[in-house]
Amino acid sequence: MNIIVDAFGGDEGVAEVVKGCVEASNDFDVTVTLVGDEQILSQALSGYENTQNIRIVHADEVIDNSDDPVTAIRRKKNASMVVGLHMLKDGEGDGFVSAGNTGALLAGATLIVGRLKGIDRPALAPFLPKNDGLFMLLDAGANTNCKPLNLAQFAILANAYVRRVVGVESPKVYLLNNGAEEGKGDALRKETFPLLQKLPLHFCGNVEARELPYADADIVVADGFTGNVVLKLYEGLGLYFGRQIKGMFMKNLFSKLAALTMKGSIREFKDKMDYTEYGGAPLLGVKKPVFKTHGSSKSKEFYYTIEKVKRFAENNVLDEVVDCIAQIGVMDHE
Amino acid sequence: MNIIVDAFGGDEGVAEVVKGCVEASNDFDVTVTLVGDEQILSQALSGYENTQNIRIVHADEVIDNSDDPVTAIRRKKNASMVVGLHMLKDGEGDGFVSAGNTGALLAGATLIVGRLKGIDRPALAPFLPKNDGLFMLLDAGANTNCKPLNLAQFAILANAYVRRVVGVESPKVYLLNNGAEEGKGDALRKETFPLLQKLPLHFCGNVEARELPYADADIVVADGFTGNVVLKLYEGLGLYFGRQIKGMFMKNLFSKLAALTMKGSIREFKDKMDYTEYGGAPLLGVKKPVFKTHGSSKSKEFYYTIEKVKRFAENNVLDEVVDCIAQIGVMDHE
Repeated sequence: MNIIVDAFGGDEGVAEVVKGCVEASNDFDVTVTLVGDEQILSQALSGYENTQNIRIVHADEVIDNSDDPVTAIRRKKNASMVVGLHMLKDGEGDGFVSAGNTGALLAGATLIVGRLKGIDRPALAPFLPKNDGLFMLLDAGANTNCKPLNLAQFAILANAYVRRVVGVESPKVYLLNNGAEEGKGDALRKETFPLLQKLPLHFCGNVEARELPYADADIVVADGFTGNVVLKLYEGLGLYFGRQIKGMFMKNLFSKLAALTMKGSIREFKDKMDYTEYGGAPLLGVKKPVFKTHGSSKSKEFYYTIEKVKRFAENNVLDEVVDCIAQIGVMDHE
Repeated sequence: MNIIVDAFGGDEGVAEVVKGCVEASNDFDVTVTLVGDEQILSQALSGYENTQNIRIVHADEVIDNSDDPVTAIRRKKNASMVVGLHMLKDGEGDGFVSAGNTGALLAGATLIVGRLKGIDRPALAPFLPKNDGLFMLLDAGANTNCKPLNLAQFAILANAYVRRVVGVESPKVYLLNNGAEEGKGDALRKETFPLLQKLPLHFCGNVEARELPYADADIVVADGFTGNVVLKLYEGLGLYFGRQIKGMFMKNLFSKLAALTMKGSIREFKDKMDYTEYGGAPLLGVKKPVFKTHGSSKSKEFYYTIEKVKRFAENNVLDEVVDCIAQIGVMDHE
């Protein structure tokens, strides 16, 4: 298996990408192809011994966050992201990872790799922490405007992923809404609800945002605007609370001593809130596995993402989506 | 000044309402009229000495959370909420507070008290905590479907409230969006942005949910669906993090000792996250001050809410709204 990584996508520099990829390639027994400036990559790799599973493909342009997504994908033919996506499309790899411009990755994945048959809009699908584990939230921002059909398709995509990659036999699917009872919400939610009821998956009804940290949800379906607000508020409040707690412990000598005695549980809490261990978010609905990691991804996030890409590619997630779409067929004509 | 309180609205029972109202009536020098079962209220009051500022108005029905809002307002003519709102409308009080069914309060305030001229939809406008204080979020759930004009009117309402009640000379107003740059968002956000730019207030552009805990915003404008998600996620994650921290400190003898030495800063943190001190949320856009407190409000929340109602009524908030609407006149015909 060969996983293609955009080595020039993140904000943290090539060294972090290379470190995560070298370790992952050995631990998970996959080939990783780094796409980017050959000279810089060779130099970064020279510090490692076990690089036998690493390949380099040269690309001398970079798409940055100020680039307009569609324009960048169309014009920067030799950008690391564009070269990598073309390799993926051409079968030269089994999955693709980038920490770069999210909009460009969405546009590139759709324009270059293409959508799965029966899926109108791909969705960004990160995992968020809750009391007893994680849940997948989608769409977290790929589509600002969504129709009921899009949300139903998101549920199918997430269901296949969570079943095949996470290993949950029958994932519990919820619709994010402004009330728990059936019949709540705006037109989009009201029309989506019956569509979700008809799907061959375990739809459990509406969930309010207040319940997200305690709900038994494996998957939460939202339109991309609302999902993006939830993702960002999770990140923002996580950072805020983290800093408040740190401030509490750094206040004086006594609290610093307290922090020492509580080192273990503070570490546990930090790990739980540390997104990097969950790895990047899959972009579900395109023809091949494509993952977006945070712009600020360190080596650990690349490491875990590569493991996820491997499991995605190995476990026929997309076949299950295709089968499901074929089974309910009528959806893409509604 | 006479403030009318729905004594049978909350989930915590009459004793909490009465306690908060007796204390507030004395500390803030206002008359408080409790609406509800006369016998129960008299009995609850008999435990207090300084009840000279308390009045009772009898109402023998109660609207509960299972009631359909509009039906309940129309049919339960003698419910404490309905009787109280009619008193407010008839000039027998200067403001109204209820911890009851939110939907019924919204419907009742609109149907009985009526909307301000030039305001199409009233908005629920709670304050949420951030690093250096609070910000007003509206609409937090009164309107599931909003148009650009509604959002612009919400900004006018909040601006007058924050200027007059909070005392911020020129509140910073932001539009909640999925990106900070101008031009971001769905059709609603894109059309709202230029409307907000034209208003005579300090519009500072878009704010992403990630930035809410650290932004310099005094006011954040959202549609009622998204605002409701933000409000509830703030509450849910606040509860979640609070419990995580508690768990950290309760883990073993060492952590319990640590908690003792850090008592002061733990208290500070809890106070900051304790919504009750901010008081209830005004329902902005109706002809008189109407406030919604949490269903689980304890005495302290009623206490602080009464202070806010007093300041709302005293400081001509609604006159400023009317003046602003008159000044820009054209809006309600767009």
